[in-house]
This record gives sequence, C-alpha cells and structure tokens, in this order.
Amino acid sequence: MSVTIKPRRMQAPVQSSSTPVIKSSLIEPDGGVVVDLVLPESEREAKTAEAESMPKVRLTKIDMEWVHVISEGWASPLKGFMREDEYLQSLHFNSLRMKDGSIVNMSLPIVLAIDDETKEGIGSSSDVGLVGPDGDLIAILRSIQIYKHNKEERIARTWGTSAPGLPYVEEVVTPAGNWLIGGDLEVLKPIKYNDGLDHYRISPKQLRKEFDKRKADAVFAFQLRNPVHNGHALLMNDTRRRLLEMGFRNPILLLHPLGGFTKADDVPLNVRMEQHSKVLEDGVLDPETTIVAIFPSPMHYAGPTEVQWHAKARINAGANFYIVGRDPAGMGHPTEKRDLYDPDHGKKVLSMAPGLEKLNILPFHVAAYDTVAKKMAFFDPSRAKDFLFISGTKMRTYARNGENPPDGFMCPGGWEVLVKYYESLEAEEATQQPAVLSS
Amino acid sequence: MSVTIKPRRMQAPVQSSSTPVIKSSLIEPDGGVVVDLVLPESEREAKTAEAESMPKVRLTKIDMEWVHVISEGWASPLKGFMREDEYLQSLHFNSLRMKDGSIVNMSLPIVLAIDDETKEGIGSSSDVGLVGPDGDLIAILRSIQIYKHNKEERIARTWGTSAPGLPYVEEVVTPAGNWLIGGDLEVLKPIKYNDGLDHYRISPKQLRKEFDKRKADAVFAFQLRNPVHNGHALLMNDTRRRLLEMGFRNPILLLHPLGGFTKADDVPLNVRMEQHSKVLEDGVLDPETTIVAIFPSPMHYAGPTEVQWHAKARINAGANFYIVGRDPAGMGHPTEKRDLYDPDHGKKVLSMAPGLEKLNILPFHVAAYDTVAKKMAFFDPSRAKDFLFISGTKMRTYARNGENPPDGFMCPGGWEVLVKYYESLEAEEATQQPAVLSS
Repeated sequence: MSVTIKPRRMQAPVQSSSTPVIKSSLIEPDGGVVVDLVLPESEREAKTAEAESMPKVRLTKIDMEWVHVISEGWASPLKGFMREDEYLQSLHFNSLRMKDGSIVNMSLPIVLAIDDETKEGIGSSSDVGLVGPDGDLIAILRSIQIYKHNKEERIARTWGTSAPGLPYVEEVVTPAGNWLIGGDLEVLKPIKYNDGLDHYRISPKQLRKEFDKRKADAVFAFQLRNPVHNGHALLMNDTRRRLLEMGFRNPILLLHPLGGFTKADDVPLNVRMEQHSKVLEDGVLDPETTIVAIFPSPMHYAGPTEVQWHAKARINAGANFYIVGRDPAGMGHPTEKRDLYDPDHGKKVLSMAPGLEKLNILPFHVAAYDTVAKKMAFFDPSRAKDFLFISGTKMRTYARNGENPPDGFMCPGGWEVLVKYYESLEAEEATQQPAVLSS
Repeated sequence: MSVTIKPRRMQAPVQSSSTPVIKSSLIEPDGGVVVDLVLPESEREAKTAEAESMPKVRLTKIDMEWVHVISEGWASPLKGFMREDEYLQSLHFNSLRMKDGSIVNMSLPIVLAIDDETKEGIGSSSDVGLVGPDGDLIAILRSIQIYKHNKEERIARTWGTSAPGLPYVEEVVTPAGNWLIGGDLEVLKPIKYNDGLDHYRISPKQLRKEFDKRKADAVFAFQLRNPVHNGHALLMNDTRRRLLEMGFRNPILLLHPLGGFTKADDVPLNVRMEQHSKVLEDGVLDPETTIVAIFPSPMHYAGPTEVQWHAKARINAGANFYIVGRDPAGMGHPTEKRDLYDPDHGKKVLSMAPGLEKLNILPFHVAAYDTVAKKMAFFDPSRAKDFLFISGTKMRTYARNGENPPDGFMCPGGWEVLVKYYESLEAEEATQQPAVLSS
C-alpha cells in the first residue's frame, strides 16, 4: 500500500520520574504552520491602492465571516477561497492531499460565489479586490480561478439531502451566483465586527500563544452554539479530571462558541456570550483553566460533514482533544418529523475522518437533570425515570411562563441572562401580534 | 503530518542494459490479496445444510450481481456487504481505512437492503442465508450488522442530486427496504448466468493468471458499456504504442465491458459482446495483446463517484493503467437539459482519489470521424469543421434508416451486429404501435 497512517493514540505527556517538567506541547497545525493572511501594516497602503485598480467582487456578511476564518488560519493550510481542485476534493473526499502527499481534513467547501455580471466584469484579470457589504475594500484575491457553481451537487454532497429549508442553503447557497471564484487571499486589515465582542475573537495564533503562556500540556475544545447549562459544565469539568488522571499536568479548556451565521431560532451570539461570562463569574467553570473565545465560522447545520470542520479548525487553534456530543451540527429534518442525521453518525464519521488521526476524540456523556440528587448528572439508564431532559424548547417554555428551571440546572446568573432574552423576544413577538386576537 | 502518500509515478519496467528480461509485475491488489469468497467444493454440502437452518434474505437480480462482484474480489479488500463503518466511510470519504492505517478506494456503497419483515425474521441471529431470485441458496452472510438505510442521504451523497429519474435509484434504491445488512460473505458456488456469456466472466484472479501467462509487464484497462467503434480502437492501439515507447515490452489490453445492470436505452450485453468479438475477428484489435472479459458490476451512472469504483476494481484485476474519457459513468441530467456531471470532473476526481495513487490514469484523447482523411482520428481543434461526432443517437438513426455510417467509423462485422439489433428493436416497437397511426 502506498498510504500509511500512524495509529491514533493519546498523546500522553513525557514524564521523568524525579523532576516533572511542565512543558507546552501543542498539536501541530494542519500543513505545519498556522496560516496568517492579514497584511503587515507597512504594506497596507500600497496594496489598497493596488486593489483599487482591480475588478471588484462584493461580499455578503457571510462571505466576510469566511474571509475572517481563512485569514486567521482556522482552515490552514487553505490560503484563500477554494479553487476547483480543492473544491472537488472537499466535496468528494472531505480532505485535501498536499503536495508532499500528506492529507488534511477539509469537509466543507469554503468557496466564494459570484454572478454572471461580476464574472464578466472580471474578464481576464488574474486578481480581484474584495469589497465588504458597506463598500470598504477588504482584501485581494490573487491568481484567481473561476469555475461552475453547481448548487444542486454542492448541496446534495454537503448536506446529504436536497430538502428545502436548510438554513445555510436558503441564506447563502440558493441566492448565490452560478460561479465560484478561488484564489489566494491577502486581507488588508484584521476583520472587526465592532459589536462589543471583538475581544472574544481570538485568532488561532493568539490562542496558541495563550496556551503556551499558561503552559498547557493538553487543550480540550468544546464547540457549542447554545447556552451553557450545568450538564455541559459537569462534562467539561469531568473531562479535565480525566485528563489529569491520564497524567496531564495542566489541561486547559477552550470553551468555543460559534460566532458566525446561525439559524433564526438559535440564541443570538451576544446573549450567549453574556450567559457564558456569567457561568464563569458564578464559578461553575474555573477561569484559571478555561479560555472563552469566539469561533468565527458560520454554521452549516451539515451534521457529520460539518463536525469534521469544527474539529479540524480547533486543531489549528491548538486543541488536541475534542469533545463530541450526540448529533453534532445536526438539526431537525426540515420537512420530516425526525433528526436530519442519525444522531450517532457525527461521532462515528469524526472518529474515522481522514486527516483527523492526530486529534483525540472524547465522546460526550449525556447529562440530564437528576430529580433525586437535584442536580445535573450523567444519565444512568438503569434509573432512567429519575432523569429529566431539558431541551431548548423546554427552557424557553420555563422562561416564557416566568418559571425557574429545576434547581441546579443552570447557575442563577446565567439563567437570568436567558430569562431577559426570552422576555424581550416575547415582547417583540407581542408587538407583532394583531391587537385583537381571534377567538 | 501523520499521513504520507508516495507521489504517483509511472511504473516503468526495470531493464538491464544487456539481457532484457520480460517479467510480469502486476500491480498489488487493494489490501494485498485478491479476495475469493467462493467456498471450496469440499465444504459446499455441509455449509449448504448449515445455511438451510438460518433465517433467509431474498436477493434481487442486482443483489446477485453484487454477490458475484464481492465474491470474486473486484471490491477487495471488502469481504462482504458493508457494515455501517464501511458504509459511512464510503459515503463520506470514498475510501476505507484499513487496520494497518493504509487507505483503499471505495467510492460506491456496496450494500444489501432488507425490509422490516425480513429484519424481524432475522431477530438476533448472527448469520443469515442468502437466497437467489429463483429460490436457490446462494451464500451465507456471517456476523451480520443491521443498520438504518437512509435512502435520501445515500442517494444525495452518491449521486450529488436527488432528482427523480436516476436509473439505479429507481431500479434498486427506492424499492429497497429501510435497513441495510452487512457481514462476511461465503458463497456456496460460483455465480453463473447461463446466458452463453459465462466464458467471458473471468475473475480477477483468473485475469491475473492470464496476464502472468502472457508475461504482461503493463496492463491497461478500458471500461465501456457501448459498442466499440474505430475511435475507441484508435485510442486503445495508440495507448499500446505509447506504453511500448515508455519501455514496456508487452502491454496487454483488458477490454472490459460492464456486464451488470444498465439503463433501458443502453445496448444490451449480448449484443455488445457479439459486436466486440467481431471487432477482434475483423482485426481492428490484436487478439494476441487483448483480453475481452465482462466486468460483472451493475452500473450506477454516478459519474465522478462511480469512475473511482470502475478504476479500483480493475486494479484488483491486475491493471496498472486506466483509460478515462469525457464524462465517465455520466448521463444526461434526468430533469434538466444538460449533462448530470461536469464532463471534466470524472477525470479530475479520479486523478485525486484516495487509494488510487498507484494507478496510472491515462486521459482519453477524443476521437471523431475525420471527413477529410475518411477515418476515425484524434480530434484536431484547429480544423474542427472537418470532424464529425457520431453519437449513440446518430448511430441508431443510421441503423433505423438502413444507412451506413461513414466508411471507417466501425468495422463492417461490428456494424452488422448493431444493424441487426436496431432492426429487431424497430420491429419490436412496430408491434407495440397502434395499427392506425393518428395523423
């Protein structure tokens, strides 16, 4: 055989029996180096002038999120929007083969779509300027390649369904142009959102520096797009305990909420960040061993295909352990009464994914409210009737009715943030109701 | 990086300058050994008796084709219908990771579907007997695993579309049960079709023996499901010439028509085999350096996904060169007026496919009828107007109208076979017409 892969194994720290040395040993980023495509300040002026003279491509808000993601190296070794060879490998193999023959995971097509008119405007230019939604020049895309955007095929291969009602498809793919444009990205200045949350937007390079500073010998990442309840906290604290038992001296948690596009009924980013900070304030998680940061990627809701992206990006940020739950990146089927994906497939696909062999996958133990112990606990199937599962819908019902969830479900500070949010939502909905309700 | 792949390169024969030794050096089959799941005759009786006592699964005609394919090792290292781990890797990665970490290509899910009733009948049995369409016990499937058959996801990920009208989907997937059953296959006796063509059904092991006997130092495979015209012949003869130029002493052509399920408007297997044998009789291809055999797989018409299967199976039969044309395994889009797949994607995807690095891909040079030279020739875009492309539809029109195609398009013996077939088709259609045609 011409392909060999080292067997997956836990990266246990090397220990001398007499003099323990705590040493940072972060996982190698994909391709060996964290890509950084933000131009140094010294070049900014000249490059901006150069970009002015190029044909322009107008970016949507979500295109900008991808520029952000690529420019900071979350998608390393990707150096820009995908050209066709990369796009096809991503669609068919969920991975890219590098020039040296090595394989990196790349499960989502990271592409930029343009319409016929824009394509015509580009003509035979080899470079284009990328313009943000408010007209600012954002970046240059060099040595471009324009190729067909077969949306039907992209959707089917990425989501495993063509059912109407997939959030990212409706928001991004369907309205997009019939061409994709790939090339090498040069970003004129760091992407900022000015929403009061930019201090949470820590790049993979900065995260690695912080892990080094804290002398982390293991980094475990927890991806989420929901409020943190005590079940999550239990899981995260238990993971740290297990890592300590395995011989690691200083495991650091990367609590890493997704910050890009989410569907309308997910809790918005600002509310989630406020809730997460209360959870740390309330001492449910230890700030000494936790870093809270925003993962700037938009959400595809593409289940087993997307969970690979979520894991791969965290390798680039320095995480060598990844916690995976039931039905990661999943959602309800948009037209049928079932989960879109088999809830176990995410974990299975992740554990077999090409290019992720070096990552240690930690399966999520299901936590639920133990009505006997009156706290969140790992679900014990032998006394299933004692456990209460509190879904997002149920949480919302509590908040709507002004009820509190059972004691111990969530720290009070965090719950208060959610109650405030759901109340504001109720108020908003009320103003959208007709004044007199029909009987 | 934990994955390394040796760069693709031509396997040029080792030559000593003084005493050239022609030595067979067949490509290694996937997994190192050609799988052979047909039980030795000595075990047949006992195993049949054992199978009698097991719960039964009834096979369709196309399931039987897959039993044939798996049992002879075309899908090596696969030893039976896929279990869920294999199915998921095939769907998501088009490849399987072996226990030793090596990667083999596996782009099509090779699965057996059962319905609820059959599942219930199996209960907790670990082995089942497989029964052919006419009630004969065919095989045993051992250490079975039953898992969900999500048809929507299987179709979307395999074909890249959910459009109605995909031949294999309509014939096989849609009518199939909601469960898949995987396990290890033991076939009670070799699969025979008794259609007068079994002598063309040569197993990968037998083919390898034949290539060895002929002292082949290169084997180039040509997959087709259409009649051979002189353009194909030109290509095959030209390939042999190129291989000789590269230093090979005895390149052997494996002319390898697909023999399993094909869509209704493809030319049937028996007609194609008769046509192919005329082509050899007429001396268009050299019988000394050509082996004609049937590839027993059914056709998916799944373009870039399927062409990998076509190539991979030929590795197992000993081919180290694979000729790939425009739009391999493609067809028209079932509901739109365009090709279902980008005609260039098959070649591109094949050249990047995991597990096929050891195979040399030979791109197909397009041949067409040169109206000046009055023969099939490689298309020269600088004098495009001199060339005539003769499609299947055009061929049929010639035959229907009793016209001959241009001289040199196909050898007369081969053409005669087709004329006879199209005439019989016309006759059949005529009997199905109403006696009086409406104006």
